[in-house]
Amino acid sequence: MSGRGRAPVGDGGGRRGPFLTGLYAPGPVAVPPEVLEALARPVVHHRTDAFRASFLRVRAALAEVLEAPGDDVMLLTGSGTTAFEAALVAAVPRGARLLALRGGKFGERWATMARALGYRVREHDVAWGRAFDVDGLARRLTERERPEAVTLVHSETSTGVLHDVAALAAVVRAHAPDALILVDAVTSLAAAELRPRAWGLDAVVAGSQKGVMLPPGLGFVWLSERAWARAADGDGRGRASAYALDLHRERPRQRSGDSGTTPATSLVVAADVALGLLLEAGLARRREALGRRNGALLAAGAALGAAPFAERPTPAVAAMTTPDGLAAPDVVRALAARGVRIAGGQDRLAPCLLRPSLLGHGDDYDAVVLAAALEDAWRDLGRAVPHGAAVSAAMAVLDR
Amino acid sequence: MSGRGRAPVGDGGGRRGPFLTGLYAPGPVAVPPEVLEALARPVVHHRTDAFRASFLRVRAALAEVLEAPGDDVMLLTGSGTTAFEAALVAAVPRGARLLALRGGKFGERWATMARALGYRVREHDVAWGRAFDVDGLARRLTERERPEAVTLVHSETSTGVLHDVAALAAVVRAHAPDALILVDAVTSLAAAELRPRAWGLDAVVAGSQKGVMLPPGLGFVWLSERAWARAADGDGRGRASAYALDLHRERPRQRSGDSGTTPATSLVVAADVALGLLLEAGLARRREALGRRNGALLAAGAALGAAPFAERPTPAVAAMTTPDGLAAPDVVRALAARGVRIAGGQDRLAPCLLRPSLLGHGDDYDAVVLAAALEDAWRDLGRAVPHGAAVSAAMAVLDR
Repeated sequence: MSGRGRAPVGDGGGRRGPFLTGLYAPGPVAVPPEVLEALARPVVHHRTDAFRASFLRVRAALAEVLEAPGDDVMLLTGSGTTAFEAALVAAVPRGARLLALRGGKFGERWATMARALGYRVREHDVAWGRAFDVDGLARRLTERERPEAVTLVHSETSTGVLHDVAALAAVVRAHAPDALILVDAVTSLAAAELRPRAWGLDAVVAGSQKGVMLPPGLGFVWLSERAWARAADGDGRGRASAYALDLHRERPRQRSGDSGTTPATSLVVAADVALGLLLEAGLARRREALGRRNGALLAAGAALGAAPFAERPTPAVAAMTTPDGLAAPDVVRALAARGVRIAGGQDRLAPCLLRPSLLGHGDDYDAVVLAAALEDAWRDLGRAVPHGAAVSAAMAVLDR
Repeated sequence: MSGRGRAPVGDGGGRRGPFLTGLYAPGPVAVPPEVLEALARPVVHHRTDAFRASFLRVRAALAEVLEAPGDDVMLLTGSGTTAFEAALVAAVPRGARLLALRGGKFGERWATMARALGYRVREHDVAWGRAFDVDGLARRLTERERPEAVTLVHSETSTGVLHDVAALAAVVRAHAPDALILVDAVTSLAAAELRPRAWGLDAVVAGSQKGVMLPPGLGFVWLSERAWARAADGDGRGRASAYALDLHRERPRQRSGDSGTTPATSLVVAADVALGLLLEAGLARRREALGRRNGALLAAGAALGAAPFAERPTPAVAAMTTPDGLAAPDVVRALAARGVRIAGGQDRLAPCLLRPSLLGHGDDYDAVVLAAALEDAWRDLGRAVPHGAAVSAAMAVLDR
């Protein structure tokens, strides 16, 4: 099992020793020991052949993960939010009309960001926990407006929903063929099927601290050729201002392994290792395993009376609502006291949502550990749960 | 001696073994083993008390380094350039008149950035290698214009000049009292005296991969109270657009150890260690040591006929011009073949400038190694140099 840290927890009298903490949140995630070793290597200079080779391998590996071999994937130092801002400004002309699909915290964030950056934003909403309805989007596009860009979240981390980006993108392409389709793939990259070229997407944004098993600090941006071309002069309107994060200035540099400003060298070297491990293990197998483990977590929760929250679950996080009378923050704290770190709900879902995740480095037995810890937490909070109830449910799913 | 890496160099038949590389560039720099160890610790979640405590310690330590205890120092994930952009946009109202002092590559960069962001920029130039003349700036300000902001570089890494920010800021305060003074302290932080409060500065920007001995990836921003206040409404003009890097949104969050987006947790934990080491060793002693070692490097160069380039040398980098007939890139390559990485000249100075640096983790003996390697490189390139000529000159300075 992975995810063990050195922050002392409890008094050593519990199931988990005093020097172990399991990190089971939907990012930041536990990373492989090989990646930690790479982070601990002496710092290298970025203007060296060795570093440039590493930088180019990372770009190529990410293009492979995106099933777009040979395409540019831009590496940025920053959060996923920073990367989304860079993609938005690079691709969408200043002041353009933008339709933001909102079904959770991150869908809302992109709408707020776009408005702050001067775009004319309208929202298309779905209740948190529900997946966007393809026909509903089609009606909206035929009846009401002609957006120049659409923002979508693939795996909405706040609700655990995996939105059907392939189908939604097809609808946008059919009804608003010129609209650029910008996708937040922060927690879906390397976790769910994601085919920007085949699906006709225009921007895909992701971050390091999720499915590619790295610490936070790197953002990734892929743009379609029409997005690169459209943005070149912003259709005559120019682009919103940016300097450090100007992807157009950066593109030719990155193609030769350089960047305009000093990149986070240690994280890039670690990314080279992490992506190598990922591709060696096989992306399809990893995606299948993440789905299976996430299903096991949802089954463990259901056995405890915690219903799955997402209509269409992402493999990246097992969002579940606590049964009546059990406050989610209490469960999160009970788990933390046992050395198990999960995420609770965000914003309006804080009182009732649990979000354990096996998105990081780990294996099937991490699902067993999490199921056992959930049982323990339930009992810690006074609920009578037969020993093994959640674990049995999880193991049955793992064996399917 | 520090700075040894694992990239194999040469065939093991040289002075340095095949698994060692000395990193002696003015950033990224060699970092202490304690910092590498911290980077290799299991990833922690950012919404935990332990991480928040680390985040707050880093902010407090940086405020101490800036001799502004208790002040906000904002931590950003990104390069020094990203941090400068965040500071500029946060402090200077949209479209304001800005005077950019340019005496090297970084001085030029801030002028270019400000123009790209829509500011009305004028330049005040000095020849590369020269320090800004205080009286010249005073004349410019009295006779010609009333800027609303002035950008300055403290330690100009491209030329090796330490500009007299205290005196220059005093002149700005005297002749343009309302102008905000924005200082690039990327290579001066923790290397040269830097007292933003006492000197009346309004923004200080720095990065992790320099004097504080961390890998690249974090940026730091300090703003004066009048800068925070002025920017709040941009004097009625608003601010240039920014979302992910909006310091105003970020300020209250960071005061409680949080941030709007996921920070580069591993780098923050490492910063906690690095700054602890730095303050424990004593900032004044370290600054004195860096100055002494840099002087030793300049003396070593002079003994080889390489004249100091900077009129007023920074302790962060020993910029020196190669003697006639010796191409700087050849020297850089000869050193690299011996496992010693220094920086050459940037832009127009590429043919003739060498920029070895002991800004990172190291001690006096690193100056001896660099002096010896410079001698070796000279001999590799066919110059007859008495054995020990550069080393003797360096050691004499170290013993002063």
